[in-house]
Amino acid sequence: MTRASSAPAVGRDGAREAGVPVIDIDVHEAFTSLQALVPYLDEPWREMIVRGHWTGFTQPFTYWATGGGNRADAKPESGGPEGSDYELMRRQLLDAYDVRAAILTGYFYPVMLGDMQVEFASALASAYNSYQIEEWLSADSRFRGSVHVAPQDPQAAAREIDRVGPHPQIVQVLLGITTRAYGNPFYFPIFEAAQRNGLKVATHHTVYVEGALGMGRYYVERHMLIPQGTMAQIISLVCSGAFDRFPELEFVCLEGGFTWLPHLMWRMDREYKSLRAEIPWVKRLPSEHVRERLRLSTQPVEDLNYDEFMKVIDLIGSEDIVMFATDYPHFDFDSPLRGLPPRLPENLKRKVLYENARRFYGLPDESRPAEDESAGPGEAER
Amino acid sequence: MTRASSAPAVGRDGAREAGVPVIDIDVHEAFTSLQALVPYLDEPWREMIVRGHWTGFTQPFTYWATGGGNRADAKPESGGPEGSDYELMRRQLLDAYDVRAAILTGYFYPVMLGDMQVEFASALASAYNSYQIEEWLSADSRFRGSVHVAPQDPQAAAREIDRVGPHPQIVQVLLGITTRAYGNPFYFPIFEAAQRNGLKVATHHTVYVEGALGMGRYYVERHMLIPQGTMAQIISLVCSGAFDRFPELEFVCLEGGFTWLPHLMWRMDREYKSLRAEIPWVKRLPSEHVRERLRLSTQPVEDLNYDEFMKVIDLIGSEDIVMFATDYPHFDFDSPLRGLPPRLPENLKRKVLYENARRFYGLPDESRPAEDESAGPGEAER
Repeated sequence: MTRASSAPAVGRDGAREAGVPVIDIDVHEAFTSLQALVPYLDEPWREMIVRGHWTGFTQPFTYWATGGGNRADAKPESGGPEGSDYELMRRQLLDAYDVRAAILTGYFYPVMLGDMQVEFASALASAYNSYQIEEWLSADSRFRGSVHVAPQDPQAAAREIDRVGPHPQIVQVLLGITTRAYGNPFYFPIFEAAQRNGLKVATHHTVYVEGALGMGRYYVERHMLIPQGTMAQIISLVCSGAFDRFPELEFVCLEGGFTWLPHLMWRMDREYKSLRAEIPWVKRLPSEHVRERLRLSTQPVEDLNYDEFMKVIDLIGSEDIVMFATDYPHFDFDSPLRGLPPRLPENLKRKVLYENARRFYGLPDESRPAEDESAGPGEAER
Repeated sequence: MTRASSAPAVGRDGAREAGVPVIDIDVHEAFTSLQALVPYLDEPWREMIVRGHWTGFTQPFTYWATGGGNRADAKPESGGPEGSDYELMRRQLLDAYDVRAAILTGYFYPVMLGDMQVEFASALASAYNSYQIEEWLSADSRFRGSVHVAPQDPQAAAREIDRVGPHPQIVQVLLGITTRAYGNPFYFPIFEAAQRNGLKVATHHTVYVEGALGMGRYYVERHMLIPQGTMAQIISLVCSGAFDRFPELEFVCLEGGFTWLPHLMWRMDREYKSLRAEIPWVKRLPSEHVRERLRLSTQPVEDLNYDEFMKVIDLIGSEDIVMFATDYPHFDFDSPLRGLPPRLPENLKRKVLYENARRFYGLPDESRPAEDESAGPGEAER
């Protein structure tokens, strides 16, 4: 792995790095334009892009309250979209903080195509994965990548996972959240493929995520509702037996927050205790499945003070579940230096910023002196 | 008000009443059959029932995991549905515990009719309210009632609120949660009417409530998802300005739980801070609106121990928000004697079981000696 400068890094917020290494588990790389996929597409799909028969995804709202969905300073001088310039990302994120690894999660989720023309969606997923490997993962050894799939065709998704899953920098399958509940056994071929390839399964909302009453009337309302899609996915995965059926699989929910987890575990456990006769394939308390095999990213971190943060971690009942993410280059970027409340215990801070993600993704420990770099027992390396 | 026996009451769980009076804010009365509404319906609606042209609501699932949706022992010997027999309700609930007031919330929510034939839905709401007043509120002075409305026709709903709102035992307007977001200004006539009648606005899910990914595949899954409808209503009310537009209105969300409230307030505040330009009519932090003018019922209480319960209350930042409810006669009835963790501070226990609801609904203090029964300053009585 490439080590960042050994001098303390300085983020854009001007604070000095406190000496804690960072693994950023939600970094959104982007292509300059849809044309970037053309070299990786076969016909007839290539023609759909070249001739402009399909012009890409958009979102059903504007980001006018923030003047766009991204950090204003993340716009490359070259004019491409935010997140499309590796050198700028390196300067603003990878080297600005002591980032030891950055999990790329993209922005181009073929699930958004829907149930029509699923073969095209699968072709786009494959093209994106090839593009990601060629143009991003090869650029920096700190990058780790996600297998993008079109879950509307689970068999094709499984084939794609088998195709790119063995790449040494690929760590997870990414499922975009729209209105599909991924616990449905329809999607189990995806989980089987992830498990046999030793990959994690990550969820991340798309612009089509909804709350219980729809998307809301305003972007700010929608943004308050985002965690509901993540909570509902966890409930779906638990009730349909994905945790029981795929005992080696681990899940991570990105950009859906984490402070609701105590409630969700209590609620699932209460309902499980009274109604589990309906789902006899679920063999353990939902909270046990969750604590062992589900991880959550911090972003967007809520404004918690020290006492509140510590109480939430205590109510979760584990220091190992929450993992830091910046969400670069989005407007609500959380700085690794300021996203967490000040004066957290060093060990907890290290876990959230680095160690939990390092262990979860089976990454080597780059934060220790060279003679100490071998992993501890039982830690899978990839 | 009728006082329960002065001897300590004994609930079906056999525990001795600890001397704390109870206000139960979610009690589901039911009619014996749809025919009960016939005397209160004008033509042509009466005929719809009498001739069987409409046969009532049903639910899109069964309750097989619990053998029905209600306590088995709540089935009246007369054969009517659970919750339809006042004498049984009195024995099992009102007198079994030291219940000083019970807020009736019904089970027959005309919002479930949808957007067709809204005049019929409004007629059913009126008939139900008349039935409720004649057959329930008159039966026991401990009962307080809800104005049921068909919110799909807000003007008709407002007229109905004006019609029955002045009844001295009516305390709130009840909005059933399906997939409608009540913050939409379309519904503001309902809030105007509630405010001018000095009523609270209560929400309660219906069998058509959904989570962010739909209803789920199982009843247990749906039951885990129920809080999302409540959370989404609060987000909708905040963002659309209902708290700002109706400054005297207070809200209570029933049967959606409460342990998610710290998360929801933090999340709303964070998004408000960065995106409030989009909703300039919202003049205060969402958490300030919520703490001052929103209340939540406990039911279904999650299995919290003392430490967890105290942490949640502390994170909510107020002891005044959570109010106890049994949800009688539903299968997941919470006993006032066992629903809360043992050894809570007496003052907090009294607030949750009694005092918060007493103040919220402006009820006289029936728990003090007679010479002390006058309300404190600023407490509205009705």
